[in-house]
Amino acid sequence: MNSAEKTIEWIKTSSTDGFSRMIDQTIIPYEYKKVDIKSSEEMYDAIKTMIVRGAPAIGIAGAHGVVLGAIENINSANFVEDVKKVADYLNSSRPTAVNLNWALKKQIEVLENNKEKTNSEIIELLVENAIKLEDEDIQINKKIGEYGSEIIPKGATILTHCNAGALATVGWGTALGVVRSAFEKDKTIKVFADETRPRGQGARLTTYELTRDGIDTTLITDGMGAYFMNKKMIDVVVVGADRIALNGDSANKIGTYMVAIAAKYHNIPFYIAAPKSTIDPTIKTGDEIVIELRNKEEVTIVNDKPICTDKVNVINPSFDVTPNELITGIITEYGIFKPNEIYKLFG
Amino acid sequence: MNSAEKTIEWIKTSSTDGFSRMIDQTIIPYEYKKVDIKSSEEMYDAIKTMIVRGAPAIGIAGAHGVVLGAIENINSANFVEDVKKVADYLNSSRPTAVNLNWALKKQIEVLENNKEKTNSEIIELLVENAIKLEDEDIQINKKIGEYGSEIIPKGATILTHCNAGALATVGWGTALGVVRSAFEKDKTIKVFADETRPRGQGARLTTYELTRDGIDTTLITDGMGAYFMNKKMIDVVVVGADRIALNGDSANKIGTYMVAIAAKYHNIPFYIAAPKSTIDPTIKTGDEIVIELRNKEEVTIVNDKPICTDKVNVINPSFDVTPNELITGIITEYGIFKPNEIYKLFG
Repeated sequence: MNSAEKTIEWIKTSSTDGFSRMIDQTIIPYEYKKVDIKSSEEMYDAIKTMIVRGAPAIGIAGAHGVVLGAIENINSANFVEDVKKVADYLNSSRPTAVNLNWALKKQIEVLENNKEKTNSEIIELLVENAIKLEDEDIQINKKIGEYGSEIIPKGATILTHCNAGALATVGWGTALGVVRSAFEKDKTIKVFADETRPRGQGARLTTYELTRDGIDTTLITDGMGAYFMNKKMIDVVVVGADRIALNGDSANKIGTYMVAIAAKYHNIPFYIAAPKSTIDPTIKTGDEIVIELRNKEEVTIVNDKPICTDKVNVINPSFDVTPNELITGIITEYGIFKPNEIYKLFG
Repeated sequence: MNSAEKTIEWIKTSSTDGFSRMIDQTIIPYEYKKVDIKSSEEMYDAIKTMIVRGAPAIGIAGAHGVVLGAIENINSANFVEDVKKVADYLNSSRPTAVNLNWALKKQIEVLENNKEKTNSEIIELLVENAIKLEDEDIQINKKIGEYGSEIIPKGATILTHCNAGALATVGWGTALGVVRSAFEKDKTIKVFADETRPRGQGARLTTYELTRDGIDTTLITDGMGAYFMNKKMIDVVVVGADRIALNGDSANKIGTYMVAIAAKYHNIPFYIAAPKSTIDPTIKTGDEIVIELRNKEEVTIVNDKPICTDKVNVINPSFDVTPNELITGIITEYGIFKPNEIYKLFG
């Protein structure tokens, strides 16, 4: 991958046909390969199995999935209703990241606002809208990066958790967008990347992305953050988010909450970097965020081999919620907000 | 393994000959196998490569290593000095756990107090002392378990980190000794075990030990503890220690410090369980504890396969220090102490 390349993009084969091409994130860093997703069912599976992951990238995947559903229903007499059913189906693939729901709604708006047009004409508009969302995502991330780079001290070491990078978006990244924009101005910044068990997105994806850009990156296990904070080796924490409540409570990859508590204990600033589309204006607090529980094997099997006895129980929540009191600021494309002021974006 | 079996024991082949037999902890849970260590150099390697690990078990390994060194020097004219050199060598195998140093000193006392005896007579005394230390370790753990079980509420779920079990000691365990003693009285207690990256002692050893005893055990990744604390699914945290300063600051496996901070944030009691021999009366605070840094591959390779790009840096501290302010109590064979009162054991 390079910075001009999109993590996920619509490939047009005609004005009413095409497919979604995406980097397969399950095989990085062992292989770098793109896969072509050509049906709404394949898209559901790609999101569910995390071939595509990261809240903003999942949003685009959803938008593409709607296009695929529309193509599948091109001859339907109940076109709009049938495509909306596909959107519902896609929405059920993963529950926590709100960007999926947000992007599906953006496509449903296109459907609703163009009911009088032919199926083919609507498909063209859905394709246009999907590509617009892709391009906007990169522009939004550049703005997040620009605002966020202001809070990175010269020569700072930034701790991040999971992957909120180019791979989690169409390009540039949210938390890693902040890192990239800061690195453009100051080549001496460094990153500490949490491994992020169980799926290891920090180890697999974040270190891959950042070292390719020439950014000095140190991999640590999820239990090490506080050790390095105590040694004054971490200056600031920046992570992404999957859903943010109106009070600023933020859901992000499991383990984020422990990092936030440790940062507070050491008086280290803790920032969320996320687009407005990650904020869910329908919920007041993080208590309302549904946390996805994933399968046991994500925890018990690593590199195709068990790490423990099979007699053990496992609970595998994929996300946790960091309460607003632990968050220094939320970096958006509209500027940096105190968590308890984020609701103003919907004022 | 069963509760009558010793994790590590001296096998006497004659009054002045024998070897150390230990469970190979690097291959559990895939294989359960004992290895026989027949030279001081093999013992150094067994400690260094963690065939034997856990502060109390390493102490016994050191005591056995001195016996092996004595046997190797049976014909030496400078017997006492030569065996003391072996003790120094063994002491350099791992720096953080003080029990190694403590047990070596116990053997050096035998050497110093019996200089007038023949080399063979001294070897007999070193063997006797090593076996006495083994048996005392189990008795001490039973007392720790008895005292500790008092702080476990009925039906409690106990979170633990790493393995402070029978496998970390000669038998019964320290933190898991508390669990075992509590389980004798109340079959409804449950354990949540942190995976404990990078070496996975929680996943590999703790779940193995506890499920064999029929204790309900749930494996979680190191980033999940705070999530379950927030859900009120953890009642108490109990972990072991590798070295405790006179002010109660406690070094334990990397990741413990983050758990302690999270416990404090949720007002959940956090206990250390350790024998008096884990307290280092020569140091006042945790700042004086030397933290072992281990190799990069422990972090980057899991089940014989890399988890990340090879371009990444790694820092791999094997332990961290939990400050006394985060510790509710230290459970010893002499009772439970507030961390700032632990010095009284040396009064």
